[in-house]
Amino acid sequence: MPWKLDLGANCEKSNVSFRIWSPYYDSLSIVLYKQNKKEIVEMNKEDKGYFSLKDKDVEYYSYLIENMEIPDPASRYQPEGVHGKSKVLCENFNWEDKEWEGIDQNNLIIYELHVGTFSERGDFQGVIEKLDYLKNLGITAIELMPVSQFGGKRNWGYDGVFLYAVQNSYGGPYELKRLVNEAHKKGLGVILDVVYNHVGPEGNYLGKFGPYFSSRYTTPWGPIFNYDEAWSDEVRHYVTQNALYWIYEYHMDGLRLDAVHSIYDISPKHILSEISDKIKIAESELKRKINLIAESDLNDPKIISPKEKCGYNIDAQWSDDFHHALHAYATGERDSYYEDFGSIEQIVKALEKVFIYDGVYSNFRKKTHGAPVGDLGGNKFIVYIQNHDQIGNRKDGKRLLNLIDKQNFLILSTLYFMSPYIPMIFMGEEYGEKNPFLFFTDFSDVQLINALREGRKKELGEYYYDPQSDDTYNKSKLSWKIDYEILNFYKNIIKIKKELDHSRNILVKIEDNSLLIERDKLLVVAAFKDSTIHLKKKWKLILSTAEFPEYIEGEIKIGRGAAIYRNAN
Amino acid sequence: MPWKLDLGANCEKSNVSFRIWSPYYDSLSIVLYKQNKKEIVEMNKEDKGYFSLKDKDVEYYSYLIENMEIPDPASRYQPEGVHGKSKVLCENFNWEDKEWEGIDQNNLIIYELHVGTFSERGDFQGVIEKLDYLKNLGITAIELMPVSQFGGKRNWGYDGVFLYAVQNSYGGPYELKRLVNEAHKKGLGVILDVVYNHVGPEGNYLGKFGPYFSSRYTTPWGPIFNYDEAWSDEVRHYVTQNALYWIYEYHMDGLRLDAVHSIYDISPKHILSEISDKIKIAESELKRKINLIAESDLNDPKIISPKEKCGYNIDAQWSDDFHHALHAYATGERDSYYEDFGSIEQIVKALEKVFIYDGVYSNFRKKTHGAPVGDLGGNKFIVYIQNHDQIGNRKDGKRLLNLIDKQNFLILSTLYFMSPYIPMIFMGEEYGEKNPFLFFTDFSDVQLINALREGRKKELGEYYYDPQSDDTYNKSKLSWKIDYEILNFYKNIIKIKKELDHSRNILVKIEDNSLLIERDKLLVVAAFKDSTIHLKKKWKLILSTAEFPEYIEGEIKIGRGAAIYRNAN
Repeated sequence: MPWKLDLGANCEKSNVSFRIWSPYYDSLSIVLYKQNKKEIVEMNKEDKGYFSLKDKDVEYYSYLIENMEIPDPASRYQPEGVHGKSKVLCENFNWEDKEWEGIDQNNLIIYELHVGTFSERGDFQGVIEKLDYLKNLGITAIELMPVSQFGGKRNWGYDGVFLYAVQNSYGGPYELKRLVNEAHKKGLGVILDVVYNHVGPEGNYLGKFGPYFSSRYTTPWGPIFNYDEAWSDEVRHYVTQNALYWIYEYHMDGLRLDAVHSIYDISPKHILSEISDKIKIAESELKRKINLIAESDLNDPKIISPKEKCGYNIDAQWSDDFHHALHAYATGERDSYYEDFGSIEQIVKALEKVFIYDGVYSNFRKKTHGAPVGDLGGNKFIVYIQNHDQIGNRKDGKRLLNLIDKQNFLILSTLYFMSPYIPMIFMGEEYGEKNPFLFFTDFSDVQLINALREGRKKELGEYYYDPQSDDTYNKSKLSWKIDYEILNFYKNIIKIKKELDHSRNILVKIEDNSLLIERDKLLVVAAFKDSTIHLKKKWKLILSTAEFPEYIEGEIKIGRGAAIYRNAN
Repeated sequence: MPWKLDLGANCEKSNVSFRIWSPYYDSLSIVLYKQNKKEIVEMNKEDKGYFSLKDKDVEYYSYLIENMEIPDPASRYQPEGVHGKSKVLCENFNWEDKEWEGIDQNNLIIYELHVGTFSERGDFQGVIEKLDYLKNLGITAIELMPVSQFGGKRNWGYDGVFLYAVQNSYGGPYELKRLVNEAHKKGLGVILDVVYNHVGPEGNYLGKFGPYFSSRYTTPWGPIFNYDEAWSDEVRHYVTQNALYWIYEYHMDGLRLDAVHSIYDISPKHILSEISDKIKIAESELKRKINLIAESDLNDPKIISPKEKCGYNIDAQWSDDFHHALHAYATGERDSYYEDFGSIEQIVKALEKVFIYDGVYSNFRKKTHGAPVGDLGGNKFIVYIQNHDQIGNRKDGKRLLNLIDKQNFLILSTLYFMSPYIPMIFMGEEYGEKNPFLFFTDFSDVQLINALREGRKKELGEYYYDPQSDDTYNKSKLSWKIDYEILNFYKNIIKIKKELDHSRNILVKIEDNSLLIERDKLLVVAAFKDSTIHLKKKWKLILSTAEFPEYIEGEIKIGRGAAIYRNAN
């Protein structure tokens, strides 16, 4: 394997090689824990703020900064959590996926899951136990919410502080590798959610070592990585190597880049472009497809456009507009960002043009937002009717099935699966889970906890619950009470989805209270109310959410529900 | 004229139409000063935070905010300064430049000047009086340091707070129009330095009216305009209209955009791209060339690349690397950013490739900096051996002639004029001015003054002088003690420059202690010490800074100095 990590603790035969970037200091000592022995050793200084050392038989280590033992920013494992020692990992994992070729972008059907709440046991083994179920459902890749070490045992993952360390409470590095290995053996891909904009509030020791964070850009939820100021070469290295690390060392099939709209970089080459360049090289070296997916709130096609069209060349991005259009129309909600949505015409635009705000004034944002996607293919966009944010960021944390009835829910499911885009299910959605997905944390810093509680009390008002409590976490776990009508519908529509391409050459129209989508010799009818529709061709039913005639042609009255027909001429 | 300003006070026949963007308020009152009469009138509310009103016979006005009279953010004139009332201007200026076609980018030879210190009287009239001198010198365009109203009577101009108001102490709007009109009559262009990144510290009332400033980006020298957050459409409008205003209402031949590296914008269309689009439209409407020039510290060719190459399509940009390479080599200075410069090879690179830091690690910046300019033409870059920053930001404020001797000074002059780029002279340079250009202010806010003085005491140490004192200002004024040897040399080299194109197809080599540049059938010899050079062709002298042989060929010994030869074969 040509790529090797040059940060953290790396084993080479009988040696362990340590390397850290710590430009704030002229000298640096490492604390080495060997069997029943603790040694403090001065590191060798290299150029540009790096220090390195080789030693033997080290089990744990930390760095001595201002007389405190601080874990390694590139620690591979923090068995005792964010404040504990870093562990040296030398065991080789016995990969069994030599033949694995990855998941082609056109075949992606994504299943987003949160390791802690997906199963009762809340760890990687809990996911492994469900791989057969997921394979049987028909999805082709799971997308893990972030697993980089965060403070405490419970967290969505976006408060991670050790980019390279796999969350101890999920089972750590070995268990994550086992999950990927088992998934690959079953033909399932694994995409990892990684956070390259900010780091979390507890256990963030990065700033002790060097200028990891920007001095000129700020976010409300934590410091932002420094991608364009002094020392940014090394910060960029820390981040781009992390992306490669998950691909090479963990055999990930893709990365979901969190909130790229909060990554600021005025360098000639944007960090996203640099990440995508490096991933493309890895892809060709490894001869397997790596899917690079951005969460972007910008509605800017630059993120996913090829280089020759001035883009960052990311493979695909989430499209919140699609979600919001469906959600606002079906629920009638108009608060917060749903203010900008609600008409059936917007669903048509979402199906046809992806972005609804593509250079259009947004009342919610109080500005003109976005730009048209042009001729970018349907496979460049990930769509969903639920995800961790769209459920979890609601005051009530409610899933869609608690807001609309099953019939409307299935109409929305039909629409997003039958869109030209890549569908993403949020765990439990496929069988009608009704448990909420709440915001939960497990911090230990009292000041931080108090600030968090006060902030959320203000924000949530009567909906307030304690983010720190076990109860909040447990309530968010999947119940696995399966509604087989929904589950079977999902299995069937996934089968149909797999037959389709991602051509955006589709015909969408509104007739009476229905949306009609014609594509790939299929007709999709989504009737939000009883409707009368008119058809020029004859169509044969292949799937429906309610009673629908087996053949339709000419003027037809239909009841509420969605159906997929095949050309019967 | 198709373009009309829709902000501020605009006269239409006998009416004055007022329009202001003030989204912080649901209602807004204007204070109207008519002859011996003061009226307070409620404005009419429009969409998106705008208010408007029509009235008659108004001489001055202000807006009532929290019971205080605040001047108009789009005021055309602040006769009493930044804290005073805004003036309604209804007089038509009698333009005499109907036939004026602007200055083609290829013909630009720029003369940067500061209105306050250029002449003893320190106003626009003082510049008008020197137009014949400037024409006779041979430059084709003057570039005025910013004239937007700043606090007090003395300022470099970068503390401007009313983008549309012409500095009262310089003579105000009428006098600026007169200067442009007179310049055009003599065939000289006028470029205006405009500041679209930040506003100054005194008299900045913009934030009282609306979110003019970014909540997420910061600079050390003032708030940054909000180009991409809520309400940014209107801030962008305020700024882009300002650019057009100088072109349409003041007949400017170009704009120099201050510090574009401090303009942050993650919108799909960058504000610089929007400005350049709008200026191109103005250019074709007005049928005269408008030169859009950026001051950029980014060494990023994106700024000046055409759209099809993913650029912002700005016409040209300053190149500090060129300056630093020459300055550091000639002076031997290595402090601050000169740390990155000093070798003769860097001068060669500057002549050949423009940017020295074009993807190369900078020790001073502690990061890899810049990107190569590729095949962008020489006319995309402005070069200089002095400018207001490179003199004024020195602790000693010293001009180059106080740092090196006349011979070395003229060698540098030769190099920058004979480069493929557009030359820019800083006022006085052409006749050997030795007065410093110091940093001076005339604020009235005591806290601000104290902070400024303390800050500069710390920064300057033994070099400290009081930025607020009249003396500092007067010391910075041009003495007009003309060294005719230098002046004549400048006149002659400008004549030669005018014969050349901006092709970057030049040959540069180092021989002994000399730089040899072959271009356009000319040979430029710049000998920093006695040198022996070898020539394959025969050359005839056309201009030199010292005694040089009239013909040279084969092996030749030359003394220190620079000379320009023409092919004599």
